[in-house]
Amino acid sequence: MTTATAHASSPIHTASLDWPLGFRATVGAAAIKKAGRDDLALLSIGAGATAAAIFTRNLFAAAPIEVSRRHLKDSRGHASALILNSGCANAATGPRGLSNAQETVDAVSLAIGCASEAVLVNSTGVIGVQLPMERIVPEIPHMVARLANAVDGGPLEPFARAIMTTDTKPKMSSRTIACGGGRTVRVSGVAKGAGMIRPDMATMISVLATDAEVDAKTLDRILRHAADASYHRISVDGDTSTNDSVFAFASGIAGRCDEALLARAFREVACDLSRMIVCDGEGFERSLAVRVTGAATKADALKVAETVASSLLVRTAITGGDPNWGRIVAAAGRAGVDFRANDLELRVGGILIFANGEPVGADKHDVRAAFNGSHVAIEISLGATEGSVAETNSDEFLSCGLTTEYVRLNADYTT
Amino acid sequence: MTTATAHASSPIHTASLDWPLGFRATVGAAAIKKAGRDDLALLSIGAGATAAAIFTRNLFAAAPIEVSRRHLKDSRGHASALILNSGCANAATGPRGLSNAQETVDAVSLAIGCASEAVLVNSTGVIGVQLPMERIVPEIPHMVARLANAVDGGPLEPFARAIMTTDTKPKMSSRTIACGGGRTVRVSGVAKGAGMIRPDMATMISVLATDAEVDAKTLDRILRHAADASYHRISVDGDTSTNDSVFAFASGIAGRCDEALLARAFREVACDLSRMIVCDGEGFERSLAVRVTGAATKADALKVAETVASSLLVRTAITGGDPNWGRIVAAAGRAGVDFRANDLELRVGGILIFANGEPVGADKHDVRAAFNGSHVAIEISLGATEGSVAETNSDEFLSCGLTTEYVRLNADYTT
Repeated sequence: MTTATAHASSPIHTASLDWPLGFRATVGAAAIKKAGRDDLALLSIGAGATAAAIFTRNLFAAAPIEVSRRHLKDSRGHASALILNSGCANAATGPRGLSNAQETVDAVSLAIGCASEAVLVNSTGVIGVQLPMERIVPEIPHMVARLANAVDGGPLEPFARAIMTTDTKPKMSSRTIACGGGRTVRVSGVAKGAGMIRPDMATMISVLATDAEVDAKTLDRILRHAADASYHRISVDGDTSTNDSVFAFASGIAGRCDEALLARAFREVACDLSRMIVCDGEGFERSLAVRVTGAATKADALKVAETVASSLLVRTAITGGDPNWGRIVAAAGRAGVDFRANDLELRVGGILIFANGEPVGADKHDVRAAFNGSHVAIEISLGATEGSVAETNSDEFLSCGLTTEYVRLNADYTT
Repeated sequence: MTTATAHASSPIHTASLDWPLGFRATVGAAAIKKAGRDDLALLSIGAGATAAAIFTRNLFAAAPIEVSRRHLKDSRGHASALILNSGCANAATGPRGLSNAQETVDAVSLAIGCASEAVLVNSTGVIGVQLPMERIVPEIPHMVARLANAVDGGPLEPFARAIMTTDTKPKMSSRTIACGGGRTVRVSGVAKGAGMIRPDMATMISVLATDAEVDAKTLDRILRHAADASYHRISVDGDTSTNDSVFAFASGIAGRCDEALLARAFREVACDLSRMIVCDGEGFERSLAVRVTGAATKADALKVAETVASSLLVRTAITGGDPNWGRIVAAAGRAGVDFRANDLELRVGGILIFANGEPVGADKHDVRAAFNGSHVAIEISLGATEGSVAETNSDEFLSCGLTTEYVRLNADYTT
């Protein structure tokens, strides 16, 4: 989750919350779960756009994921449109679910006039329920018709709102990159809530878009690097949904851009969205970042960071603002990573608490204050060589305190 | 957690809650955390007794675990006494903690008159705090003196109570085995609460004892089999403590016994105690068993069972009595085990809910009732060959609903 802080000389800047050039979006209402709200979101991209995606590894991947996976493969990483819906995940819906997903993309491709394989699709909402095709299919031509009046590079917000389920706010982020000679490219993104944070609700969905010119293979690489630093470093409840997906599109309209800069902008947008996802989890009170340095390998660092950030005991202590450092140390010790226990140093909010196998006698008021902020920063050093090695073999994981509200929301809801 | 149900012809029977022959126990009060309650427990075993133990794999194993590990190795699996205390875990206590643990066993060995390495030790309670040696050491000779008047094979309860921390009830179980010719042997056990279910509290501790004659190597094997079927198949919060341990002792007084029968009795006692641990977890409302059959390997079956039983979303649904079968299927699908999604069959309380990749349309009232009992039995078949293979490649995991009370207790407690 670490992102380079923008400084005066950086060519990457925070930008207005708009789509890049070459992207037009419209929304529609099909009363999928509830009448009167936008629950369909359509993104149209100029001809020749490249596409990449990361899909859930859950064996019960939803029907639209199966269709999108196939289309992305058949098109060799190109796409003209993305259709998303909230209110129904179209997961665990058998052959009928699969044909409904196909019928949805066929309706879009027919209305737009592009190949079926150029349309990607995903759904989010209740599991095990079929889509109301009789209301979705007729709405699609209207949405496509409205694309003609949609602003190229228009606002992200209507699209971000239409894909919300239990999210309390739309999640959006944007950066511009100065490419030299006065030319700029833009990277923008939207996302909806992480994890399966409400009964029967599935899915984190994120859409990243740029007007830079990027071939499909490079876009795929940039997306994976960005996801590794963001979506793969957060947890609300540790459950992977049937519909998790991140899409990336490049319209190419703004021309080429240095790959390293573009990758950094993608990573910054993805990290922004990931933080918004964690901080909008059900029952959210406090966020929690665990940074591990000095591990034997980078994978070890991630394993320790994720184990501590996911520990129920650590997460409940964070909620209580309780300086239970013993739980942090014990969670690190059960991560399945080999290190010398006496080498571990624990800092919370920058205060050294534990070293050489015992508490160092830090000031109790300082420690209590470090556990009591809206964000708790835990740093664990595992003692590997100082300097570059320690930095290389480090990683970070973001989570949030576990609250009674989270349990209440997830237990009391009745299907 | 599956145990053979005792039937009329079984030679194994539930027995009175007493120690086997060759075991005497006393308790003492050293005001370790709170004055006026028994917080020391001493078990004395006749000469020549064999011993085995399983200790936490946490890298921050507590000081007494280090001492017990060494003693058990030096004595080659023999022991004369076990001293336990509640109120302080003597974990994360550095060199002073280690010398305190050693001083405790030395005091016991001196008072009893046995080798120091014949004494095992463990502690449970607050992490990062030193033991009050000035109150513990003087109490030990009194406890040893009282051993003379303690009944050989006396009641388990005082010992079981002295090791309680946040447990609401003492945990005890006993079996007798008819060995033929009117001869019987006994297997008894006590335990204290699982996981780190209250802030800064560490530890599941269990002590199993038999008067059968068993060499140290066989006892170790029997203990490991019993633990695999019980303590290693339960979870309250997924956190492994710094002090987790299971001890087994055999006094040998009642003579030899068929190893398979003895192993079964150990397993039954261990399973009893494990169930008691889960059902006495902080904020306990409902228990949850996940049985997986028809996996490609037994390890796969365990992985799926543990993933489902540990899922926060499944556990909150169980608390709410909510028939959220989608969460169960999604958790199975992210377990990291390869199986064909269409082969999965889900039954809850014996009712088939999901098969061939979609819900089968089970009666909603029946399904709701299955989710609403005090114990929810989830069965997942992964479709491997019927019969013996399906049974062999199966496993079971026991957990409990995650409740707001669990979070409240773990968040609100202040150190």
